[in-house]
Amino acid sequence: MTPLTALIAQTNPSPGDLTANARQLATGLREALRQDCNLFLAPELALMGYPIRDVIVRHPDLVQHQRPWLQALAEFTQDNPLTALIGFIEPRRARARQLWHEALSLPEDPLPESHGKPFYNAVAILQGGRLSGVVRKNLLATYQEYDDHRTFEACPQVGVAWVNNNSHKSPLLWLQDKKLAITICEDLWGDDTFFNPVAHDRNPIATIMQSGEADVLINLSASVSRLQKEALKSSLLHHVAKRYQRPIVYVNQCGAIDECSFDGQSRWVSASGEILHKGKAFVPDHFVIDINTPEAWASDSKSHSVQAVLPSQQRVYSPEEPLLLAHLHGSVTQGIADYFAKTGFKRAVIGLSGGLDSSVCAALLVDALGASNVLGVSMPSRITPADNERDTIKLAQNLGIELITLPIEDITQGAMAKIHQAAPLLEASWGKPEAHSAAGENIQAMSRATLLRLLGNQYRALPIATSDKSEFYMGYTTVNGDMSGALAPMGDIPKTQVRALGFWMNQEADRKKASVRVPESILNRAPCADLSLDVKTGSPVLAEAVMMPYAFIDEVIWRIEVLQQGLETMVQTPFDYERSYGALNATQKRDWLRQFYRRMNAALFKWWVAPPMIMVASHGDITKTAYHHPITACNINWHGETPDSARQKLHAP
Amino acid sequence: MTPLTALIAQTNPSPGDLTANARQLATGLREALRQDCNLFLAPELALMGYPIRDVIVRHPDLVQHQRPWLQALAEFTQDNPLTALIGFIEPRRARARQLWHEALSLPEDPLPESHGKPFYNAVAILQGGRLSGVVRKNLLATYQEYDDHRTFEACPQVGVAWVNNNSHKSPLLWLQDKKLAITICEDLWGDDTFFNPVAHDRNPIATIMQSGEADVLINLSASVSRLQKEALKSSLLHHVAKRYQRPIVYVNQCGAIDECSFDGQSRWVSASGEILHKGKAFVPDHFVIDINTPEAWASDSKSHSVQAVLPSQQRVYSPEEPLLLAHLHGSVTQGIADYFAKTGFKRAVIGLSGGLDSSVCAALLVDALGASNVLGVSMPSRITPADNERDTIKLAQNLGIELITLPIEDITQGAMAKIHQAAPLLEASWGKPEAHSAAGENIQAMSRATLLRLLGNQYRALPIATSDKSEFYMGYTTVNGDMSGALAPMGDIPKTQVRALGFWMNQEADRKKASVRVPESILNRAPCADLSLDVKTGSPVLAEAVMMPYAFIDEVIWRIEVLQQGLETMVQTPFDYERSYGALNATQKRDWLRQFYRRMNAALFKWWVAPPMIMVASHGDITKTAYHHPITACNINWHGETPDSARQKLHAP
Repeated sequence: MTPLTALIAQTNPSPGDLTANARQLATGLREALRQDCNLFLAPELALMGYPIRDVIVRHPDLVQHQRPWLQALAEFTQDNPLTALIGFIEPRRARARQLWHEALSLPEDPLPESHGKPFYNAVAILQGGRLSGVVRKNLLATYQEYDDHRTFEACPQVGVAWVNNNSHKSPLLWLQDKKLAITICEDLWGDDTFFNPVAHDRNPIATIMQSGEADVLINLSASVSRLQKEALKSSLLHHVAKRYQRPIVYVNQCGAIDECSFDGQSRWVSASGEILHKGKAFVPDHFVIDINTPEAWASDSKSHSVQAVLPSQQRVYSPEEPLLLAHLHGSVTQGIADYFAKTGFKRAVIGLSGGLDSSVCAALLVDALGASNVLGVSMPSRITPADNERDTIKLAQNLGIELITLPIEDITQGAMAKIHQAAPLLEASWGKPEAHSAAGENIQAMSRATLLRLLGNQYRALPIATSDKSEFYMGYTTVNGDMSGALAPMGDIPKTQVRALGFWMNQEADRKKASVRVPESILNRAPCADLSLDVKTGSPVLAEAVMMPYAFIDEVIWRIEVLQQGLETMVQTPFDYERSYGALNATQKRDWLRQFYRRMNAALFKWWVAPPMIMVASHGDITKTAYHHPITACNINWHGETPDSARQKLHAP
Repeated sequence: MTPLTALIAQTNPSPGDLTANARQLATGLREALRQDCNLFLAPELALMGYPIRDVIVRHPDLVQHQRPWLQALAEFTQDNPLTALIGFIEPRRARARQLWHEALSLPEDPLPESHGKPFYNAVAILQGGRLSGVVRKNLLATYQEYDDHRTFEACPQVGVAWVNNNSHKSPLLWLQDKKLAITICEDLWGDDTFFNPVAHDRNPIATIMQSGEADVLINLSASVSRLQKEALKSSLLHHVAKRYQRPIVYVNQCGAIDECSFDGQSRWVSASGEILHKGKAFVPDHFVIDINTPEAWASDSKSHSVQAVLPSQQRVYSPEEPLLLAHLHGSVTQGIADYFAKTGFKRAVIGLSGGLDSSVCAALLVDALGASNVLGVSMPSRITPADNERDTIKLAQNLGIELITLPIEDITQGAMAKIHQAAPLLEASWGKPEAHSAAGENIQAMSRATLLRLLGNQYRALPIATSDKSEFYMGYTTVNGDMSGALAPMGDIPKTQVRALGFWMNQEADRKKASVRVPESILNRAPCADLSLDVKTGSPVLAEAVMMPYAFIDEVIWRIEVLQQGLETMVQTPFDYERSYGALNATQKRDWLRQFYRRMNAALFKWWVAPPMIMVASHGDITKTAYHHPITACNINWHGETPDSARQKLHAP
């Protein structure tokens, strides 16, 4: 048998940064040549970076700028038997395609170029020093973080759309004695024997495998990391391999692009569905596989085809699974590190309150950027408890970061004095100020954010927003205050999971014989904004006292995002919360749920102006990338009506 | 001939607010009955409000909550000959459809319910007190502000998908002696004899008209207002009417939903393409048409079918056309008024600097909300020129708004003192502060925004961001500062057009014998941030001195968004700017363009955290709704490479 060895290049692209992306590909190509590989495989849109979103529609020159790079990359395949598959954006309009003819002739387009979207999401087949063929994405992903339909046309033709000297007229790429079925990302996700419901009305894998001639399935992807998606992806690959009894090469990019953190973990899967090799998680990786290895072809009768276990079939809210927490930590720290690296920053500045969120966030920053790049700033007010200040000092010591203290009392007083000056001027026109205005609380949060941003300006550092997902849902975070910053690393992590992550990081430190990272007194402290005092106790008002328990809030978020349950269903469904904390009476539960939805309606604006959050949740988030909502959808009645009440409201004057 | 009279209900829906939307529809239905109409026509998704975006995917209960409302609305058609067409969201999954059977049986679905997206964008045909049929959208809009593919499945079947007692087996709705071809919004925009390129690969209008049996075309829309789109829409309707020699009823919603301002202007178009009636712009409207009127059917041989004049075929940058400015004013003031009304606010608070942007913005607020709801706040620093303070007082008098003055010098000094305290503490670890830090400038803008936000808290008022589109492109605006607020009304209006709008508003005031609104000294003032002093002149640094002329900036924005030109093309293309201000030498022009792209790359984060902006530009904007981009796409080399330079970079160590 002729050897057929492939190098899988699990790269970390930057969107639109062709130089950086091409250089990573060149490194991989050199390695492939050094190891005498016949095949080089890179992720979806590896040259442009995925996602690039609407940038290519507004700046179509960027698509043309791929040409010299593809030419230079093709040269690696000159005078040798290497075939390289590299994701790129193929223009569809006649005038744009003409520009390619000189050096890199584009194959024919099966669709009229005057119809549909301007681009294909494609793979260039580079052979003999030139572009010798093209594969185009069949199924477009348009949900959550994916928006393919905005820019790409779906290609109806599966496999190789065109390849040099294709006397076979086959959709397969013939290489040595093997025939390769090449597909792009979402093309793999249309299997209606695995998903029910399935997102697409056709399955390109079934179509390309129909003839029975394909030897190997290759899928080139850019698939965002989400908790529990790893398990789902493994099941899917297992299922598809078993279904067609063919091995699969699955290539996935790593690195983060804004809110999307890609996990890599490219896979070489046998015909019996077993993983023979898995690329590293959250780092670039190169590995070589021998496609002819017998173990790839062994069929294993004991291994059964499996069915999807979708997040929505999960029946318990469990934020504390250690495996999830490890993945969460990897995803978020990669997200932080890449956001800094790709925007050209090294340093972060974070406000430390001695509370849970800011402390866990600081530990994540240290893991992502290194302690010397993190500056903690304690900004106490007269409300800040002395315990918090002591804990903050301990935390900074544990993490090895610099800590400075800038009390804010005088600047908040200064701003409030201005506002109080305005009151008599406005009394005639606008009356007296609101009795329950949040100004006195907000000014503290805003003063802190202002100082962080100024420090950022002075030291070329990015200020960090420390708000967690539960706070964003409840609007329990201040615009231009704690939710303001260049990045909100924990904006997709609910409070109960932030706490679990803190304990997990301490355990990991312990396991590695390092000292505890986040003082236990912080992890065990009741969540508190420290912005106002309870008149009865004289202590700061606790978050759960003004809202409801975070364990309840987080379960509601999970029921909404993962199970898509509505308010009335939740009233009638026993909560996991009740198992741990005792049954709730119906009035209490309904009151909390009402408050939850009322707060959520009012929080939509805060989601809109939030900085990027690194998405991690298994099946939903409030990132701008993945969840689009109108702010004016804030008057939704979540209870619904009966036919009678609807009729009455229509006929009321 | 049996009379066939239709009431067009041009409503203003709120997303998800079924009560408010159904009540508007009921008002229209009552009017239709009072006027003995046979037909009632409402816009696309009139019951739910368009766009509702991902909200229905996360909260599918909301789709079920339509049922009692549709039932109550259907009752208006009981015991009378009225047929009502009302846009709604039709669930596709079997379990969701079962819930409808009790009172409002849903017709069959031609596609397997287990495949594809969970909903159709549909129209309910209400007759005889019940749901008697359904029309489903064929072409999905997924570009700019539209995102249909995220939530809806495209229906392959044109016209009526199902209708009670349809013995004709026809896609047309038979009503009296007329056969109606009913389509939804984008379905109209697939005409490949009008558009080239055309966005879709099929044209449902051609399909439904093929039999030649349809008498009237009905299109139910929610089509966002953009400058120059009105002319395009009129040409399209004219073209389609002429092509099929049939009259068209075009129904469009009005009102604003976040960044999208809909213009209404529903139309009744004759078979010869003439507009027989046009609904009002930017306000709800009801009007009755007689579909059998002879003038609708008269064919006019003199009126020729027309071709699209797309914005991209426009060849001159002309921000000052009076007709555009009138439309711009209508669109933005509706956008402001509805954002306030739908989020439950009445009052606005705006910082007034005596500069162009804040002054024109204040005038817009007064037109949208009324003078008694607008509070101007002058917040001078030691840099603010006395002329500006005088002009601000004059402006407030002209507009009739309350003005208060809160000097900021002491609070900016207080914050900067804190930061200077930090310097010695950080010198050992992070070294000295940046020599050219923007902290001293930013603290002024941030202090002002803080005061506005606190005043907003105290008086239940929304603070307003006054930055214009040119400033957003150049990043010449401060995060948590002047770009911060609940709404950025002028975020899609470039500086030159802001100025033109100011002059236009004054002329309108003059025409109505009112006093001048914005003092001419403000409209003629050179743009200046008033945040730092020029060491040479001792006066505030002018924006155009640190960047480039706004007339040049705005033309580049136009060339990027409308013509999709790249940097190198622009270097080689003579600018309109050069016609007015003299030819630029090549070095100067290239320098400005380089600086433009460099600044744009660095401004992407600011677009991300900007508040909602009301979109108005003819063919592009930087709103979160319509332009999706990664922040990490900030390392794009806009010049491109030659094959040689690309090769060198790949092989460099």
